[in-house]
Formats: sequence, C-alpha cells, structure tokens
Amino acid sequence: MATRGRSAELATTKAHGLPKNRLETLVDGVFAIAMTILVLELRAPQTLGPGGLAQGLVDLGSRFATFLISFIVLGVYWFAHHQVFHFVLRVNRTLVWLNILFLMGIALVPFAASVMGAYTNDPIALSLYGGVLGLLAALGYLIWWYMSGDRGLIEPGLDPALVHKVRVWLAIGPVITPVAIAVSFVSTTVALLIYLTLPVVFIFFNPVSRYLERLRETEP
Amino acid sequence: MATRGRSAELATTKAHGLPKNRLETLVDGVFAIAMTILVLELRAPQTLGPGGLAQGLVDLGSRFATFLISFIVLGVYWFAHHQVFHFVLRVNRTLVWLNILFLMGIALVPFAASVMGAYTNDPIALSLYGGVLGLLAALGYLIWWYMSGDRGLIEPGLDPALVHKVRVWLAIGPVITPVAIAVSFVSTTVALLIYLTLPVVFIFFNPVSRYLERLRETEP
Amino acid sequence: MATRGRSAELATTKAHGLPKNRLETLVDGVFAIAMTILVLELRAPQTLGPGGLAQGLVDLGSRFATFLISFIVLGVYWFAHHQVFHFVLRVNRTLVWLNILFLMGIALVPFAASVMGAYTNDPIALSLYGGVLGLLAALGYLIWWYMSGDRGLIEPGLDPALVHKVRVWLAIGPVITPVAIAVSFVSTTVALLIYLTLPVVFIFFNPVSRYLERLRETEP
Amino acid sequence: MATRGRSAELATTKAHGLPKNRLETLVDGVFAIAMTILVLELRAPQTLGPGGLAQGLVDLGSRFATFLISFIVLGVYWFAHHQVFHFVLRVNRTLVWLNILFLMGIALVPFAASVMGAYTNDPIALSLYGGVLGLLAALGYLIWWYMSGDRGLIEPGLDPALVHKVRVWLAIGPVITPVAIAVSFVSTTVALLIYLTLPVVFIFFNPVSRYLERLRETEP
Repeated sequence: MATRGRSAELATTKAHGLPKNRLETLVDGVFAIAMTILVLELRAPQTLGPGGLAQGLVDLGSRFATFLISFIVLGVYWFAHHQVFHFVLRVNRTLVWLNILFLMGIALVPFAASVMGAYTNDPIALSLYGGVLGLLAALGYLIWWYMSGDRGLIEPGLDPALVHKVRVWLAIGPVITPVAIAVSFVSTTVALLIYLTLPVVFIFFNPVSRYLERLRETEP
Repeated sequence: MATRGRSAELATTKAHGLPKNRLETLVDGVFAIAMTILVLELRAPQTLGPGGLAQGLVDLGSRFATFLISFIVLGVYWFAHHQVFHFVLRVNRTLVWLNILFLMGIALVPFAASVMGAYTNDPIALSLYGGVLGLLAALGYLIWWYMSGDRGLIEPGLDPALVHKVRVWLAIGPVITPVAIAVSFVSTTVALLIYLTLPVVFIFFNPVSRYLERLRETEP
Repeated sequence: MATRGRSAELATTKAHGLPKNRLETLVDGVFAIAMTILVLELRAPQTLGPGGLAQGLVDLGSRFATFLISFIVLGVYWFAHHQVFHFVLRVNRTLVWLNILFLMGIALVPFAASVMGAYTNDPIALSLYGGVLGLLAALGYLIWWYMSGDRGLIEPGLDPALVHKVRVWLAIGPVITPVAIAVSFVSTTVALLIYLTLPVVFIFFNPVSRYLERLRETEP
Repeated sequence: MATRGRSAELATTKAHGLPKNRLETLVDGVFAIAMTILVLELRAPQTLGPGGLAQGLVDLGSRFATFLISFIVLGVYWFAHHQVFHFVLRVNRTLVWLNILFLMGIALVPFAASVMGAYTNDPIALSLYGGVLGLLAALGYLIWWYMSGDRGLIEPGLDPALVHKVRVWLAIGPVITPVAIAVSFVSTTVALLIYLTLPVVFIFFNPVSRYLERLRETEP
C-alpha cells in the first residue's frame, strides 16, 4: 500500500511537471543570504576619533539607512514572491529561468546598497540602486505575466480580477523606478524618499492579502 | 483521485490563508547565516608576536566570548521562534512583516557582536548590543501578542494559561535589557554578566517545553 | 490512526533507505550561498578617480561579466540537479558522497570566478575556471551514470531513451571544457565565449524539460 | 474533511512534542554556509611575483589542502547527522540545545581551518583544529547517547545492535582526536595525516548505511 501510494504520487508529480518546492527553497535561501549580508556593510569603526565610539556609530548613519531600506525592499520582494507562488501548481524551464534572473537581481541588491551607502549624495549611486530595483520589478511583472497566462502553471479557477489587480500592483515598480532615477539627477534626497515610499505603497496596497482575507471571511 | 487530492489541498490552503512553511524557511535561513557569520569576527592573526600563535589566539579572547554569547542568544531566539510558531496555523500580512522586522534585528546581531568584541569595555558598545537584544525581545513579545489574539492564526483550543505564561516569559527580555544598558554605564562587567545570564534564564524557564512534556505524559 | 500512519511511513522510509529531502536542502543551500557570495567580488570603489563613480563602476566591467557568467552557470547546474533528482526515490552512501564532492566544486566557483574577474586575460585564470566547470560536469555525468544504473535509486519505469539522452546531455560539459582550456592559451576571448555559450546550449537542449512537457501533453 | 485532516495532524504533532523538521533545516543551513565560506580563505593573489598567476595559485596549496580536508570533514559530520536523525521521531529542549552546541562547533570549523591554512607547520594551529574536531565528535557521541536513551525520541523498535554499533562508530572521533593533538607537537605532518584518515574511516565503517542496505535486501 505504501509503495502504491508512492507510485501514485510520483506519477502525479511527473505528469504535472516539476514541483515548486525546490525553487522556493533556492529563492528563500538567496533572499535570506542577501538580507543577512547587507549587515556586512556595517563594520565596527577601526579607530575612534575624539567623539569616541558613539561618534563612530553615528558616522555609520547613511550606511545604516541603506541597510534599513534594502532590508525592507528585500522583504517586500520576498513576500510578493511568496504570495504569487502560492498559486503555482508546477514550474517549467522558462519559469525557473525567469526566477534565476530574478535571483541575480536579488544578489545585486547588497552591492547596489553598498555603493549607495558609500556615496549617498551621488546620483550615479542612486541610479544604480534604482536600476537594480527597476530590473527586479520588471522581472516580477514578467514572471506574473508568464505564470498567469494559459500555461497550466497556476491554479485553474483563479479569479481573473485578482490576476489583473496583481498585474497592476506589480507594474508600480517598473513605472516608478525610472522616475526615481531621473529625479536622482535633480535631487538625491527626493530620489531616496521615493525608494523609501515605494515599499510602503507595496506593503499597504497588496491585492493578494485582501483576496485571501475576503475568501476567509466568506468561509463557513 | 490524485488530482482531486491536490484540489482539495489547494482549496484548504487558500481558504486558510498563506501557509507558514516559507516564512519558517526564511527565518531558519537568516538564523543559520547570522549564526555562522559570527565566526567571521574570529580571524587567524596576520602576524605573530613573541608569544607565537598561542598568544595570538589568546588575544582573540574577548571576540571569542562575544561569539559564544551571541551564538547562544541566537539559539535562544531561534528556539523560542520555533516553539511559538509550532502553534501557528496560517500567516497574514501583519505577522509576516513583524517577522521581517524581527529578522532585521537578527541580522544586526553579528554587527553588534562585532562592535562589542572590539570594544568590550566601552559602555556604548554594550548599550548597542543590549539595544539590539531589547529590540528583538520587544518584537518577540509583540509577535506573540498579535498571534495569540483572536485572529484565527493559531490553533483554536490552545490553553489560555500557556498563552499567558509565554507572554510573561517573553516579557523578561524587554524588561531586563534596559536595565543592562543602564548598568553598562556603571560597570561593563556586570552588564556583560546580565547578557550571559539572560539566555540561561530563558532556556531553563521555558513554558512551551514544560507544556509539551506534560501533554505527552498524559497521553494514553 | 495517526500513530499507525506515522509508523507506516517510518517503516516505508526505513525500508527504502534514506529519503532525498535533506540532501536536496543541503544542495539548495550551498547553491544559494555560492550564487549570492559571487556578488562579494563587486565592491564599491574605495576612491574615485577623475571619471567619478560612473568610471569606477565601468572599471568593474570584467568582474561584472564574471558575476553574470558564474551566476548563469550555477543556475544551469542547479536546474540540472533539480531535474535529475526529480527521479530519485532514495539516496545511499555513494550517492551522498558524489553529491558532497559536487558541492565542493560548486563552492569553488566563487573562487575561480574571483580569479577570472581579476585576471581576465590570463590563460591560467581561464583554465582554472574551465577546470572547475569541467570537474562539475564530470561529477554530474558520474552522478547520473551511478543513479541510473540498476541500484533501485530511481523510479523503476523511467524511459531508457530519456536515461540515454540525459547522459549525452551531461557529456557536453566534460567534452567541451578541456577544449576551452586548450583554447584559452591561444585566445582568452574565444575561451570566454565558449564559457558563455556552454550554459546557453545546456539551457536550450534540455531533454528532461521536453520529456516532462511531452508527458503532460499526452495526459488526459 | 480537509479541516478534520489538519486537526488530526496538529493533535498528533502536539502530543508527540516538537517535530524535527525545523531543527534539520537550521542544521542543513549552518552546514551549507560553513562549507561554502571555507572557500573565502582561497583568494585571488593581489599581486603576481615572477612566477605569474600559476605560482600564485601554487602558493595557495596548503590553504587548498585545508579547504579539501575541512569540506570532507563537514560532509562526514553532515551525513552522520542526517543518518542519526533519520531515526528521530520528535525533539525536546535538551536535544535542541545539544544540537545548537554542535552547530557552534560546526561554525568554528572555518575559523580553525583558516588558522591551520595559514600556519600549517605550527602544532598550536593543528591542536586548535583537532580540538574543534574533538569537540564535535564528543558532542556527536553525546547526542546519540541522549537520543538513544529511553526518552521516546527515536523509533521504538530500533535494533539495539545498531544503537551499540553507532555508539562505537561515534566514539572513534573523541578517542583519536586527543591522540592527533598530542602527535602534532611531535610531527605536524603525521597529525595532518590523522585528520585526513579520520574521515575516510568514518565514511567506510558506517553502520547505518550497512543496516539500511541489509533491511532493503530482506525486503520482499
């Protein structure tokens, strides 16, 4: 019986293509590492000036702000990935490779953050950061567009209104980041504020959370 | 049949919101990395003095003590997270974001440890370390308070006495760490001893372990 | 009933040897870390020359190219591992150790990439990189050869034509990398182009993807 | 029905204590990171001498040997952990803390390896390495002793002969490493050879592999 159970499971898995769990493990791993190595930019000051350690820590201010923004940004992308993949039934070659490109963007966040932490007032540094965020946002949009197409990758009966709302939600990033890059050449402060606002918008206007909450409320 | 099994599973998952497994994978990943990169503070001495390598290793003493305390502290928080999430049925947006903030605190532990390892006698270094521990403790308390509220996130029949005991247990940190910070300006040694004692108290006064053991004993 | 279910499960697991999930977690972890630490080679320029930050970033060009190639190469190997292990039923000592050697090669990729990023025009650097890729390819071939032998490690009814096609597919690497190494002593540019082409060939000529897609099409 | 299924599962899990999966994820994560950061000791030479890059890489020889030995050693401990935890039904507080101490030893391996890679001929460096290996071996022995005691943590009907054989197997390390440390003060080469031989003995005299293979052969 146990053997039959296993064979059945295998047959199903094979028939439906590759399961999503290992891709999720890889994605969660890359996010966890990218989030944690952000902290390597914060280093104990080697030598102390007249202000002592307190001043040495205050001097880390802009690096700390970059750490904070980048951690939240990675959190936003991770949660969006988690929510979107919640509806995935199986993965195929194209979806895997879109995700690997997405992970490449995630791995670049600590680098872009490190440049922005060191050169906070340089529009080039802010553009690099915006470029990485924009690339990630564009790939996120592409992944959802590909997944939600008629390819049997997601749950069949998924509400088309939700599919559309998620598409609009994921279009915020690719639309806003080029604006932020352009703005950074006028005012780095305003560009930085846009990078701060973007995740907040993403967090509060979240169609998947609302969809799942509504489903739960109508449950018997 | 297999297809029906899958549909049923999906329906259930969707109806109950997001499953907790990916959040747990992210949390476990960040803890594993934070714990392991603590060791990057211990470096082979570049040049050897008259005492040779033995002296070079002895000179790493305070960094090694910091490694030890920080590893145990991260172990304490990981185990508390594991135990508390054992009762979680599903996650929602707020719970995910509270956890991402918690992980930000975890990612800061190697930085605070590095500062404390380099400036063991400086009250600022000990306050920074205490501040990170206090933030983590406060977030841990907040997470439990949010989870155990009437939000359908945890197992319905959970013993209210346990809920209360865990709340008291998790309040130890937010109460003690401000004391340790204040003490560090009087005596860094006493503050360090408090950081050493805190995890020990946490480990031995563990209401979840006792609750699970008692349940097991009353099993037929 | 629940207890009986567990015992049954245990009996089955034990009878069939070690399950594959922990090996997959270790493999996914090593891949995630190797992919993410590639970015540590990209560092914010310490000092800026007359061209400013823009020039400083342009100077990172060859390191960035190495990052890109290496990330794609690791993605290729990860996906091949995922696909090949999809058919695994259980693991044994030899399969575990072949995988640990494979992971050693994966862990060496960031080192070989770092050398190639620093000495892009040196045939020794390109040979080292080719050597690591060749070792990985050879181990990949060996793993499939061992797995697909009559050892009860993979699904019994697996199509022998697929087994053969995967073998040919995995033989590309061990055949091409020695050529690339030889070529690198004549022209480092051509060798680099081979390293760029290899993953592309691997991605598009993928027998497992085609096999799974065909199975899916013939599904009722 | 689905809801009933979940409740049943929860009841069972709770009644038997904490499940082992999250501890396994943490352990696999720490191993994956420790294994991969070993490579950070291998760095591209900053400047090239008259022998060029080839000589620069040859000079990394003793660091490379340390990388190799340490990777295999971590592989041995990971596989032993995997095999031993295969029989675990649930975890409790003591078992979790023994494992966290074990992980602390694992996190120290890259440090000890880095010291040994830099000072290969110094008995202090070899003793440090042997000390970390010995600590890990002792903790491994302790974990098995605790687990296999009458605490309901492992599968009830486990063959007592296997329990004994695993105990002997895990006693090799705590017995041999003090010898290697003593020997290192006479000859660092012989001590290094012992560190090389130890994992080989561990790999080939593996009672769990043999036990599982025999079970499989007697299967109908």
